[in-house]
Amino acid sequence: MTTTLPASHAFDRAIALQPLTANLFSGATSDDYQNMVGPFGGVTAATLLNAVLQHPERIGEPVSLTINFAGPVQPGAFEIEATPLRTNRSTQHWLLLQRQGGEVVTSGTAFFATRRETWSEQQESMPAAPAADSLPQQIRQERSWFQHYDFRYVTGLFHPKEQIKEGREGTESLLWTRDNPPRPLDFASLTALGDVFAPRIFHRRQRFTPAGTVSLTHYFHADAAQLAASGDRPLLGQARATRMHNNYSDQVAHLWSEDGVLLLTSTQVAYYKE
Amino acid sequence: MTTTLPASHAFDRAIALQPLTANLFSGATSDDYQNMVGPFGGVTAATLLNAVLQHPERIGEPVSLTINFAGPVQPGAFEIEATPLRTNRSTQHWLLLQRQGGEVVTSGTAFFATRRETWSEQQESMPAAPAADSLPQQIRQERSWFQHYDFRYVTGLFHPKEQIKEGREGTESLLWTRDNPPRPLDFASLTALGDVFAPRIFHRRQRFTPAGTVSLTHYFHADAAQLAASGDRPLLGQARATRMHNNYSDQVAHLWSEDGVLLLTSTQVAYYKE
Repeated sequence: MTTTLPASHAFDRAIALQPLTANLFSGATSDDYQNMVGPFGGVTAATLLNAVLQHPERIGEPVSLTINFAGPVQPGAFEIEATPLRTNRSTQHWLLLQRQGGEVVTSGTAFFATRRETWSEQQESMPAAPAADSLPQQIRQERSWFQHYDFRYVTGLFHPKEQIKEGREGTESLLWTRDNPPRPLDFASLTALGDVFAPRIFHRRQRFTPAGTVSLTHYFHADAAQLAASGDRPLLGQARATRMHNNYSDQVAHLWSEDGVLLLTSTQVAYYKE
Repeated sequence: MTTTLPASHAFDRAIALQPLTANLFSGATSDDYQNMVGPFGGVTAATLLNAVLQHPERIGEPVSLTINFAGPVQPGAFEIEATPLRTNRSTQHWLLLQRQGGEVVTSGTAFFATRRETWSEQQESMPAAPAADSLPQQIRQERSWFQHYDFRYVTGLFHPKEQIKEGREGTESLLWTRDNPPRPLDFASLTALGDVFAPRIFHRRQRFTPAGTVSLTHYFHADAAQLAASGDRPLLGQARATRMHNNYSDQVAHLWSEDGVLLLTSTQVAYYKE
């Protein structure tokens, strides 16, 4: 009898990096996570974080991550430079640069730390929502990355084909989401899941306009053990905008584990054309 | 008759920079804005933004800014390196590094853009609040920077001396604030005003613990003309936390002009010791 190793998840293949020199890694875009222009930004963000996660000088776990989408990532090879800017006793600040052909396509900073146990409290409770498996899976095929996530909307679905009258919807979406097929949660997959919300301008107007994330910031509220405890079960995500003004909209989002632990607070600013 | 030029505001002196070489500027900390360890972070953030604002290659106005406080800024001289990482037709991505003695003390990224007029909407309305001048000015002398801001709390004052029972307060503060003496609003002063909220852990427990901002992200919702329209009138600021867990707390904040225009969405993650 032979046992075959399980095939790695498409997500792990998409964020895989090979070390080149001290702070330099090489990778390549994945056809599995393509968006309209270049890869799904969440996977790009996870790939940059992954450079720190596998850096031999890394200490601690991610607390904050900011990723700036400076230009389109072309299909093919890229390099990521991950430089520890400052290492203190239990904290570390990182600079992240993704380049193609010598040009910066993505920039970022990350803060890692070793946490100690302290007084703790969660202020933002998980919103009430029907169980994930009681809701229909939203099947969308337009972009390859959609097929690698399971989306089950409670409210705030973007469905322009149903001719919702413009202005009837707000900017808030509430949905269950996870990798498809399911994959145990870790910092890399949580980073990508924090960017799965469609641009708020789509929801607000229920029509499409050229749009894309410009800058994204994640605050991780959990350690690796808490993420592992979530297993491959769905997370509840909530996203809303606070102002859309002359080409730019913000987004404030949260992701909770199925049992109500707030894992991620995420904000982003997105461009919209008109 | 002689006219004397008005003395510059302490804030302008604090964020002043002299160009050294192409992307390099020199500055010095100001005694007027000292906090417990080093300068008030809002002024440090404003000083890094100021390097881009006065950079000859800058295009557009700030849309997003992330500042990471990597180590204490010592009293005295510093250098700021502001590098345009990527310039597109109407957008520009910047890398910001503040150094003392060759060591990085602060890092950051900024995104600038030229906006065009589009469909726009403000979703987050200004909370109801009594007029600023109907509220007492909060006089605090413990740190020099306090004296350069006008604080008028509606709710969520940190007042541990009044022996509020631990656990009775939430994490939300609502207050009017502006420079003291008043100074016309611009991107630099708005950047600093976005960091005036005391650590949420203080408010939540109504007691002091060593704490400090680790990373801060601002999204600017207004252009220079809208900021100028606010003049030197107070802004209404609201800040709250969503989770405090093992040394780190987040904060989600908004600042509105007196007439209700949302000018800034700001998030930060702060360290707390215990």
